[in-house]
Amino acid sequence: MNAVQIDGKVIAETLRARVARDVALLQANCNVTPGLAVVLVGKDPASSVYVKTKAKHAQAVGFRSKQFLLPSNVGEAELLKLIEDLNADHSIDGILVQLPLPVHIDRWRVLEAIDPAKDVDGFHPYNVGRLAAGRPALAPCTPLGVVHLINTVVSDLNGLDVVVIGRSNIVGKPLATLLGDAGCTVTGAQLQTRNLPEICRRADIVVAAAGCAELVRGDWLKPGAIVIDVGINRTVGSTGTTKIVGDVAFAEASKRASYITPVPGGVGPMTVAYLLANTLSAAISRRDLSLAMGPEDRHVCPPRVPSRILQVDLQHGC
Amino acid sequence: MNAVQIDGKVIAETLRARVARDVALLQANCNVTPGLAVVLVGKDPASSVYVKTKAKHAQAVGFRSKQFLLPSNVGEAELLKLIEDLNADHSIDGILVQLPLPVHIDRWRVLEAIDPAKDVDGFHPYNVGRLAAGRPALAPCTPLGVVHLINTVVSDLNGLDVVVIGRSNIVGKPLATLLGDAGCTVTGAQLQTRNLPEICRRADIVVAAAGCAELVRGDWLKPGAIVIDVGINRTVGSTGTTKIVGDVAFAEASKRASYITPVPGGVGPMTVAYLLANTLSAAISRRDLSLAMGPEDRHVCPPRVPSRILQVDLQHGC
Repeated sequence: MNAVQIDGKVIAETLRARVARDVALLQANCNVTPGLAVVLVGKDPASSVYVKTKAKHAQAVGFRSKQFLLPSNVGEAELLKLIEDLNADHSIDGILVQLPLPVHIDRWRVLEAIDPAKDVDGFHPYNVGRLAAGRPALAPCTPLGVVHLINTVVSDLNGLDVVVIGRSNIVGKPLATLLGDAGCTVTGAQLQTRNLPEICRRADIVVAAAGCAELVRGDWLKPGAIVIDVGINRTVGSTGTTKIVGDVAFAEASKRASYITPVPGGVGPMTVAYLLANTLSAAISRRDLSLAMGPEDRHVCPPRVPSRILQVDLQHGC
Repeated sequence: MNAVQIDGKVIAETLRARVARDVALLQANCNVTPGLAVVLVGKDPASSVYVKTKAKHAQAVGFRSKQFLLPSNVGEAELLKLIEDLNADHSIDGILVQLPLPVHIDRWRVLEAIDPAKDVDGFHPYNVGRLAAGRPALAPCTPLGVVHLINTVVSDLNGLDVVVIGRSNIVGKPLATLLGDAGCTVTGAQLQTRNLPEICRRADIVVAAAGCAELVRGDWLKPGAIVIDVGINRTVGSTGTTKIVGDVAFAEASKRASYITPVPGGVGPMTVAYLLANTLSAAISRRDLSLAMGPEDRHVCPPRVPSRILQVDLQHGC
């Protein structure tokens, strides 16, 4: 068997185009332009690239995009003051503080300072708690992207066995929640899980989000499994060149899986696209332009949410 | 094999005695008496029994105990006003609104109105979110009780395979979080899970919390498994008498399991004991009598938390 690649680049582009279309509708009909503020502390090269990418795509879909680049020695109080100002700024719908933060800043104090209604990363405990309870919430972008990618190849997840490797707050845990809500039987595994290969071999879908290069081997997979690779690991080859690989041994896995995401070009682009979708949702929800989002919309195919909500709203006027 | 019964009554009694000892210490050294407010709307017989039991045990450990019995037609606004008053009342450390509420009241609006620092049921999204992220939080009582019972027979849960049947917000989901944090590989199953018997047979620990009488049969268990039965189901026998049974076919399961909890007398008493432990923790945390609770204390053996914290505080004075 040779697995079909799930092309995250193309799927993300479609989602971004949908967001752009809804932004245009929102502007034309309701005179609202969603605003996204991205805050970067310090000059970490990877973080700088992420922030630039996010700002670029935010502008491309028609958002008002603001970047705040603070020095690495900025005080926590000053950062909190900026967030307070952004919370109060009605033109800002989404606030994203790029992680990691310098060690002298309490990350949780900063994340909890963000207005949950503008928390487009979905990291505020209030949103985490609502998501955990299966209620409408701004959910983390990467898990939303993963569910979306899976949905492109299997629309009804009910009853499927899924293994999620990795229990991070950003990916593994919220993803297990979303997939459980969709009716999957989810096993939460970790690097140190006993019999990890055997546990993976039982699964219809394997999601690797452990941050460990090429952890999942070909013979860990049930023939025909769907494989989603969230890992981004930089490895140095024998010639000294840096290479980016995922948490899955791609060539081996491709021989057993039915569908597989590449790295790069799989999950990565979806994360940025869902940042945009979340910002659009926040812009709509904050202005009471919609009924609350139903959890089934959010979980199964969130990109439908903004457009459907928008259509409902436009019928009733803004 | 004949399983050893895990005696929840005795274990809960020990925990309540510990709480009572710590309350006495807190009173003697810091002049603080924890206060618990229990709110009941309507006269549902089962709820009335629960509320009386909670109030009785609260008094027995030395708490200030208040009950608020509201008519079933009370308005939501009036209930919210009561919660606002209780939030502001410094003598109250824990607020519990007995569920279910009448249909004309928005349960979530009420639960979200409770000050998270007094949310001794652990149902506020803020606490749910902090728990989901592995941070200090007031956690739901039944899952805490289940972890405690398991810890009485196996102290190190790391690497064990656990199946939790049932994904409720009150039991299944927070329990999966706690067990995952303790290093277990947790599979979240549901009534409709494919191959449920087979999935259970892989597990070192099976927790049944699906609300389905005698769902788990003896041959669903790996020999030597630990079985925790959270179910409380009323069944009517052929002679017309009512009988309470759990989610596990007890006689069959006892022949395969190494340890098993009975129903009644297993998980039930632990829920009330943890309500008391949570109220004590809230009383200590709210007054800044302690450093923040470490997650490992909370998860593995929460009853140690109050006493240890108290000893630290007493060294530094109240």
